[in-house]
Amino acid sequence: MSELRVGVVGVGVMGADHAERVVRKTAGARLVAVSDADQGRAEKLAAELSGGTAGRAAGGTSYGNVRVFADPLALIAAGDVDAVILASPGFAHAEQLFACLEHGKPVLCEKPLTMDAASSLQVVEAEHKLGRQLIQVGFMRRFDPEYAALKELLDSGELGRTLLLHNVHRNQTSTPSFRSEMIVRDSMVHEVDIARWLFGEEITRITVHTPKPTSLVADGVSDPQLAVFELANGAMADVEVFVNFQVGYEVRCEAVAERGSATIGLGSGVFTRANGLAGAAVPADFRVRFEQAYDIEVQRWVDATLRGEIDGPSAWDGYAAAAVCEAGLESLSSGKPADVALADRSEVFG
Amino acid sequence: MSELRVGVVGVGVMGADHAERVVRKTAGARLVAVSDADQGRAEKLAAELSGGTAGRAAGGTSYGNVRVFADPLALIAAGDVDAVILASPGFAHAEQLFACLEHGKPVLCEKPLTMDAASSLQVVEAEHKLGRQLIQVGFMRRFDPEYAALKELLDSGELGRTLLLHNVHRNQTSTPSFRSEMIVRDSMVHEVDIARWLFGEEITRITVHTPKPTSLVADGVSDPQLAVFELANGAMADVEVFVNFQVGYEVRCEAVAERGSATIGLGSGVFTRANGLAGAAVPADFRVRFEQAYDIEVQRWVDATLRGEIDGPSAWDGYAAAAVCEAGLESLSSGKPADVALADRSEVFG
Amino acid sequence: MSELRVGVVGVGVMGADHAERVVRKTAGARLVAVSDADQGRAEKLAAELSGGTAGRAAGGTSYGNVRVFADPLALIAAGDVDAVILASPGFAHAEQLFACLEHGKPVLCEKPLTMDAASSLQVVEAEHKLGRQLIQVGFMRRFDPEYAALKELLDSGELGRTLLLHNVHRNQTSTPSFRSEMIVRDSMVHEVDIARWLFGEEITRITVHTPKPTSLVADGVSDPQLAVFELANGAMADVEVFVNFQVGYEVRCEAVAERGSATIGLGSGVFTRANGLAGAAVPADFRVRFEQAYDIEVQRWVDATLRGEIDGPSAWDGYAAAAVCEAGLESLSSGKPADVALADRSEVFG
Amino acid sequence: MSELRVGVVGVGVMGADHAERVVRKTAGARLVAVSDADQGRAEKLAAELSGGTAGRAAGGTSYGNVRVFADPLALIAAGDVDAVILASPGFAHAEQLFACLEHGKPVLCEKPLTMDAASSLQVVEAEHKLGRQLIQVGFMRRFDPEYAALKELLDSGELGRTLLLHNVHRNQTSTPSFRSEMIVRDSMVHEVDIARWLFGEEITRITVHTPKPTSLVADGVSDPQLAVFELANGAMADVEVFVNFQVGYEVRCEAVAERGSATIGLGSGVFTRANGLAGAAVPADFRVRFEQAYDIEVQRWVDATLRGEIDGPSAWDGYAAAAVCEAGLESLSSGKPADVALADRSEVFG
Repeated sequence: MSELRVGVVGVGVMGADHAERVVRKTAGARLVAVSDADQGRAEKLAAELSGGTAGRAAGGTSYGNVRVFADPLALIAAGDVDAVILASPGFAHAEQLFACLEHGKPVLCEKPLTMDAASSLQVVEAEHKLGRQLIQVGFMRRFDPEYAALKELLDSGELGRTLLLHNVHRNQTSTPSFRSEMIVRDSMVHEVDIARWLFGEEITRITVHTPKPTSLVADGVSDPQLAVFELANGAMADVEVFVNFQVGYEVRCEAVAERGSATIGLGSGVFTRANGLAGAAVPADFRVRFEQAYDIEVQRWVDATLRGEIDGPSAWDGYAAAAVCEAGLESLSSGKPADVALADRSEVFG
Repeated sequence: MSELRVGVVGVGVMGADHAERVVRKTAGARLVAVSDADQGRAEKLAAELSGGTAGRAAGGTSYGNVRVFADPLALIAAGDVDAVILASPGFAHAEQLFACLEHGKPVLCEKPLTMDAASSLQVVEAEHKLGRQLIQVGFMRRFDPEYAALKELLDSGELGRTLLLHNVHRNQTSTPSFRSEMIVRDSMVHEVDIARWLFGEEITRITVHTPKPTSLVADGVSDPQLAVFELANGAMADVEVFVNFQVGYEVRCEAVAERGSATIGLGSGVFTRANGLAGAAVPADFRVRFEQAYDIEVQRWVDATLRGEIDGPSAWDGYAAAAVCEAGLESLSSGKPADVALADRSEVFG
Repeated sequence: MSELRVGVVGVGVMGADHAERVVRKTAGARLVAVSDADQGRAEKLAAELSGGTAGRAAGGTSYGNVRVFADPLALIAAGDVDAVILASPGFAHAEQLFACLEHGKPVLCEKPLTMDAASSLQVVEAEHKLGRQLIQVGFMRRFDPEYAALKELLDSGELGRTLLLHNVHRNQTSTPSFRSEMIVRDSMVHEVDIARWLFGEEITRITVHTPKPTSLVADGVSDPQLAVFELANGAMADVEVFVNFQVGYEVRCEAVAERGSATIGLGSGVFTRANGLAGAAVPADFRVRFEQAYDIEVQRWVDATLRGEIDGPSAWDGYAAAAVCEAGLESLSSGKPADVALADRSEVFG
Repeated sequence: MSELRVGVVGVGVMGADHAERVVRKTAGARLVAVSDADQGRAEKLAAELSGGTAGRAAGGTSYGNVRVFADPLALIAAGDVDAVILASPGFAHAEQLFACLEHGKPVLCEKPLTMDAASSLQVVEAEHKLGRQLIQVGFMRRFDPEYAALKELLDSGELGRTLLLHNVHRNQTSTPSFRSEMIVRDSMVHEVDIARWLFGEEITRITVHTPKPTSLVADGVSDPQLAVFELANGAMADVEVFVNFQVGYEVRCEAVAERGSATIGLGSGVFTRANGLAGAAVPADFRVRFEQAYDIEVQRWVDATLRGEIDGPSAWDGYAAAAVCEAGLESLSSGKPADVALADRSEVFG
């Protein structure tokens, strides 16, 4: 298989985002199918992302090469769908995951896996019985460059054994319907995964403290919350979750180890305290520093070229830079200011 | 055209990087041809990136769907190459750019456009005569999210008119053959483009100062250098270029405007001083903060799935998180610690 | 009273520091007496700080104007001692505090007030019965400019009600005899005071968690510790105390309020997250920024002048600056570089 | 001499500040005289700082122990004035400095030494002829802990030879009468001194560039300015001075050396880039971190005690901390939350 034909189930905010990601930013994948309880939303997205107009297809309408399925299980079963992204509501996951397993379809399932531990365990057992792993859960923080660098640092042993994690998870505001339980299940769950992943250990005990809530939240909602996790190896983690912080979105994690600490989420890579110094690594190389710039440059060049356009520095920009550098060389050798002799743009361009 | 067939001319460090970028990270593009003065290098890369074995093809060997051209001009002329990335040495650019123009091929040309202002102007004029823009120059910093955000901020007028730029451009070490002139032409040229782009004005005068050089550089090389640019609108920019800084790679830019300043390159987005505060914006939303994590998650899921593997959080991870959250809910309601009842992994997995 | 005659009881590290502080940095106070269980240590310090040689005095020896008392209670009782700094070991505090109260002497008592709550309460009651406050406890963090600015910000109400504190208290290493209990009583006690002070509320409940200890500490010592405080108003605070952090000394405090958070201990004043921005205030004025510089300048000028010396920029420095500024004015008006014509120093100074 | 009797000439903003500093913060000095062209201003300050009421004294009025001189030269000549702080307008300095030299009075002279290089040189020569140094110039930045730490770091040789300085000097706004020349003479002069001091070399050439001015300044004023200094050893410094920056007051200095750079003025001590790391040192010890807190604590305790008050943590605070720590020890040993049993405050205090 050289190209993955992907179907997306559930195209609300996250699912639509993923569908667009497959189309516009991901190499080796092609969006071939979408499905949503809101059929119109699925059709609109398919039309947008395929650039195609509506046609008839098995199981429903198609737009360009993207088919819209009314029934998510039909999408999962479809022969030309190689793999599935599940972004449907959590309560629908269990049934759809079992369908993926039944049809042998690899699936990227947004968290939560299912709504409770018992049904999640059934999914695990079913996958295990199948004899191959097909399910990945959408704990995307593991792919964040900062978290990934933190894990790499901790695993290197450079700071000694990790003893404690301090986590902060803040949202600007939550929807009015976001209750105390959801703060645990939908927000704190990310720290649950991060603590398990960073330590490589299971959590054995959890205490959720409820300080007096902010006045900017509905009565009865415990926000912020302060949790303490105990891990199987005796390490601990504390977590503040505050979903009505007003200021904005903020996720921080400080790992405290035997010979230093490392913090991410300050917006500056991994900030370490070790060997008497508090700071961050300076990248050795321009490709590390500007990797994202190169990726974006080439993607945007491809996109613009397909549209028959230029979307970046032009030949004139290349020429002007050359002219300034020539004057710079003159100044370098003379030690004096050098004027830049640039062609008259209006003469060149008429 | 729904997919861009790309040929890469010159597959040294930058060209190989771009070729791999087209294959592994870029949506909507396909690598179909490479060429290099070192034929073996080109063949090795084609084999690696295509996963294919050698076969015969018009104009040379092919690996999978990637053809290796001995002659870069033949690659440029080839009918199934829609667009070209030029990463050959600078002295070869002029001829290859003229060929691209002749064949109507869009081209992303690594800087410098050509080796001097006169030949660059000829390229500009030839492209202008053609009546359509085909050439983009590889000033990739314009695509760096920090520089882009800086430009957006300055263009918004929020800080008033921009008055000054302070730029720092440092490399860990240069090759021994990197002479004073190259510091201007290959390094400072980036700041030349940045100053022109951020101000939207041409540079009219340049002074290159040469402080006493570091002792860690060959005799006769002026490193660091301190340049002052004057722009057509009376604004100014200073630039430190220091290609043997030892510490690592560092690029910084502070724009000083009438009502505040903004600095990038500190590794923390745009750091502003305005309205009595020095700091950076807090993102409003998790999608801004974790956009890159989502992109990487999906790209790696696609890559792993094509290999028949899982490369991320597993179903067990999803289950364990559910079990901890259930205990968390118990603690939330009881106000006491709650133990996590996790299935015995060895029983589940045998 | 226009000058305070101070006696210091206990001249170990802290007491000697305080005695020197009274002599060398404090306006309006004079050191007149010291006392220590180690008489030699007290005599050595008195000799150093007074610059005097030994003489006879009531109650012991005197050096210059500083008397050395063998008996701390005699020092407290002495008629020419207006006020006392207690830096003796904690177990000696109760008796000495009662003596201060008896003699009506104001006293600055290093923490702890006494060794347990019951005896501390007796001190409080005795002072209350006296009808005037004489005792100040050495919780010096309240005087740290960062903590003071944090309290001012929180009290201003700008961020709304304070909900949570996150505290970190780390030492490089502890002495081998520093046991788990001392981590609570000697280290965490600072956060106890800070939490009470910042919230203006009593602590009603405390939980001390003991993660698996660092391997760099003696068996049986619980280091680090993770405590949770609950306050009378329902607010909470968590505290990491880690007295063998290896890296150095670090004290941090983040206050989380309804409309933002504020952190101190990053070495950069009060770092706030509010109104969508993370950052710190820019001082409005040079006197704020350089207040400490002015204080040090004048103190060192006084000290050097008393010794008959100059310890700062000389007249030549003033002259050289004037010469450079004159050349700068020439460049300002000509727009060209201006050479600095400085007198030949060897001619001036022979 | 064990105490320095100081007279202050000129009690505008800076002089009044210094006079208060001598009285309230400086050990070993006593304010005995003030003088100002505005006699009323001098009397008001003397009354405030001495706490005294007006009396007759030789040469004018006296307040407590502070005499007010109508004639600054009489103050300088007065037998009971040991040393002088000159904070009069710059044009008055020359005459007053000569008077100090004549009377052998040590003098701390606010910058500028005098108004031009020629008269400054005459002062230097007169002092040299006298055979002893009496004049210190008020370049107070040398006493700023950050600048001092920067100098110490550079002098240590740890980063190799210093090659370049980048300086930024910004004020919120200037008075309307602040002209281009004053930006050089009153503002940039600080960077002139800093460059000379940090390099330990004279400046041999200066170029002052004038970018197009901010629109928030009067016509004809060149603000900001961008200067380049060349030093005798071939090193260089650039300086931005911008006295109408709007945001606030900001002074920064980055020294670029052969093996790293160091920046101060970020509000976080010395920020270095060296050995692949960007960051700041973690203090080893609480006395480094909290030195200022201890100084302020003792000064405020002395001040309050002289007033018969308490101005810090009370005995109750000491007791409450003891009670919480006792509960903490209980929790430490039980592993469970422990309630804090605090005496009823109203019972204790009635």
